[in-house]
Amino acid sequence: MYTSAEIISVGTELLLGDIVNTDTAYLARELAALGIPCYHQSVVGDNPARLRDSLSLALSRADLVLLTGGLGPTCDDLTKETAAALMGKTLVLHERSYDRIRVVLEKRGLPETDNQKKQAMLPPDAVVFDNDYGTAPGFAMEDPENGKTMILMPGPPRELEPLFAERVRPYLAKKTAHDGKNDTIYSLNIGLYGIGEAAVEAVLRDRMESGSNPTVAPYCGEGEVRLRITARGEDEDSCRRLCLSVAEEIRGVSCEPWRPGTLDDYIYGIDCDSLGAALVGILREKGLHISCAESCTGGYVAKRITDIPGASEVFDGAFVTYAEKTKVAFVGVKEETLSACSVYSEEVAREMAHGCRSAVGADIGIGITGIAGVDDLVRIYHGKEETLPAGTVFIAVTDGTRTECTRMELSPGRRAPLEAREYIRRRASSQAMWMAVKMGK
Amino acid sequence: MYTSAEIISVGTELLLGDIVNTDTAYLARELAALGIPCYHQSVVGDNPARLRDSLSLALSRADLVLLTGGLGPTCDDLTKETAAALMGKTLVLHERSYDRIRVVLEKRGLPETDNQKKQAMLPPDAVVFDNDYGTAPGFAMEDPENGKTMILMPGPPRELEPLFAERVRPYLAKKTAHDGKNDTIYSLNIGLYGIGEAAVEAVLRDRMESGSNPTVAPYCGEGEVRLRITARGEDEDSCRRLCLSVAEEIRGVSCEPWRPGTLDDYIYGIDCDSLGAALVGILREKGLHISCAESCTGGYVAKRITDIPGASEVFDGAFVTYAEKTKVAFVGVKEETLSACSVYSEEVAREMAHGCRSAVGADIGIGITGIAGVDDLVRIYHGKEETLPAGTVFIAVTDGTRTECTRMELSPGRRAPLEAREYIRRRASSQAMWMAVKMGK
Repeated sequence: MYTSAEIISVGTELLLGDIVNTDTAYLARELAALGIPCYHQSVVGDNPARLRDSLSLALSRADLVLLTGGLGPTCDDLTKETAAALMGKTLVLHERSYDRIRVVLEKRGLPETDNQKKQAMLPPDAVVFDNDYGTAPGFAMEDPENGKTMILMPGPPRELEPLFAERVRPYLAKKTAHDGKNDTIYSLNIGLYGIGEAAVEAVLRDRMESGSNPTVAPYCGEGEVRLRITARGEDEDSCRRLCLSVAEEIRGVSCEPWRPGTLDDYIYGIDCDSLGAALVGILREKGLHISCAESCTGGYVAKRITDIPGASEVFDGAFVTYAEKTKVAFVGVKEETLSACSVYSEEVAREMAHGCRSAVGADIGIGITGIAGVDDLVRIYHGKEETLPAGTVFIAVTDGTRTECTRMELSPGRRAPLEAREYIRRRASSQAMWMAVKMGK
Repeated sequence: MYTSAEIISVGTELLLGDIVNTDTAYLARELAALGIPCYHQSVVGDNPARLRDSLSLALSRADLVLLTGGLGPTCDDLTKETAAALMGKTLVLHERSYDRIRVVLEKRGLPETDNQKKQAMLPPDAVVFDNDYGTAPGFAMEDPENGKTMILMPGPPRELEPLFAERVRPYLAKKTAHDGKNDTIYSLNIGLYGIGEAAVEAVLRDRMESGSNPTVAPYCGEGEVRLRITARGEDEDSCRRLCLSVAEEIRGVSCEPWRPGTLDDYIYGIDCDSLGAALVGILREKGLHISCAESCTGGYVAKRITDIPGASEVFDGAFVTYAEKTKVAFVGVKEETLSACSVYSEEVAREMAHGCRSAVGADIGIGITGIAGVDDLVRIYHGKEETLPAGTVFIAVTDGTRTECTRMELSPGRRAPLEAREYIRRRASSQAMWMAVKMGK
């Protein structure tokens, strides 16, 4: 078992802020899931002296050092050489890696050069992690005498993440297994909507702090909370069973006094990536089709539904009815309703939901109208003047017989105008999808 | 002038990978624009001993240390106390900050507590940066004897970014000015589409490496490149003039032999945040309205247009025509065209563009149809079978007289399916918006 780990990212583009360091966040989550504490993360450039200092510092504080980046084929990339020297390792040509690189080069029609050979130079006793997503292999260098391990991995997230998930995670799971048992790590996500992270933490505190197997950790998004259940066990099947039984237990947890009901009332999906995936999944299961007519969200719901592969089985088309005239022309909102209730009203949202449902021949229709801007607006509602604060959104969801309607007042806080707009539109589209999930269930 | 800076972020949520460290990327970009080299970035938790070690290391290597996070009102937050002790400073109540905090609490209907008082405790000689976006003030501690400066700022990006831009950047610009002159820093962005970062760097290498005033630095996105021109001068007006004259110079730079034409042929906007903003801006200027009929992008173009405040002046509504039946019903695609050319064809994209334009009464219409999935598809095109690779998208833009059409073959590389889908849809919607920008110009 490792007592602690550190994550070091190498790259000038990080030091210049040209890219955001998602690698470190990814690896940090993975370490947490593996139960390996991490107290330091750092970024350093390609400079060998500074890199050496950073690496020795990390090795002095931790017994596992994860390194990303700097494995490119150019001469600037000295990460591997520097790290190997520090671990007392030499580099020799690793035939299997070189063969793999040659296959990639051939496919791309590129010539072999010494630079590519350089990428296949590895310590003879390295544990090599084949890279199916790029040319540079990942590898672990172990120094059993001092109890230190260093793992080098490529920097691009679309190489790093699958490489880690498929090869490094199992390696670390084995290393952190007690008595060679329980060397499999498995995680299951639960997506919750309509309950805050603070409330979820409060009702699950005991479960989270028990630290037993499986562990439960919350991650929050805008209006969403994700719980990650991580089990350690002998194989994936038994881990998954463990996770699912904890998920069942979590379903029944009461949310009082923070929120009404149990956690089950807020769960949109287990083991699904997003609200959109949950919605498309439920509709497919039930053989239902959905449509929407969007005003202030301007296509955001449609975009999020069609983000999901297989959306075409449940979604034929939708309307962005931004102006009043398109609300009337496309989805049959009545002129009388617009003048009696104003465009910002539950009544118009309902007509939009019904209208798009009929126009497309769908089972479920969504209508959204509201104020995504940062200025309050005045509406005349049945003859009465009323100020609607910015962020007021009316959402209706109908299956033809039942129609649910919600009025949200989304406060973007002190966000800048563009971010406030994104916040209101994202939250409103999430709410609409959540209402549709509940109707489809 | 500072010889070098370091950025330290404090927070357990970063160490656990619960959030991605966008603060550091933001500050790194700002330091680069100010001409202050940064060789190290790090993340540490709320633990005072580890924080102290990290801070002293940073102070030993750099003369400017930027610290974000750990300024919350709870007792766990010891960042300020630890940093102040290290700089040999005591903390006393800063009346102006406390008054500001009390105003915020009153607005939110919250009681005053000692915790809030703690947030207003600052070194008596601190340079205080009022926080208009939250309760914790930012501040600089200067140690002129050792030539060290430490700046503490709140962690939430929507507090940090405006606080830095409005208060800390001017402070640093003054400090880095030679002879007290040229103490203003100003940046201008140029957005380019349809040319890669490598080509932009190649044709601007001399300009970028000259390091003279203004500086030019590229940032790349998917299919987009942004150039950031940063000038240093006596006031904002003269800086802006300097930036604009460099922008003019850049317009004329030839892209040969990398790409045809000059950089001007690829510029979608100067000083505008996104392709969407450029498009809405041009349409507003010309008094034109736009609509779209989207198949594989499923509302992405509409969403990106309505991301922009003021979109309602140029956009009345649009269609998501995902299934063939909605292409026929909503925007009048002909059954004959669908059977002769298949739904994946330039002909259908053209009819979608014309159809949505007429249906909405817009000046410009966009039609998009293609394959966002990861599987190749076979189409029967005028009786001939033809395999279309995944990522093939047909985009048409029309103003009623002229119609431009593009066939893209977007290769998502080795991305995972969901990411491949997002990549194809994002690139296709960007291309459509870029074609509309060119038509609107």
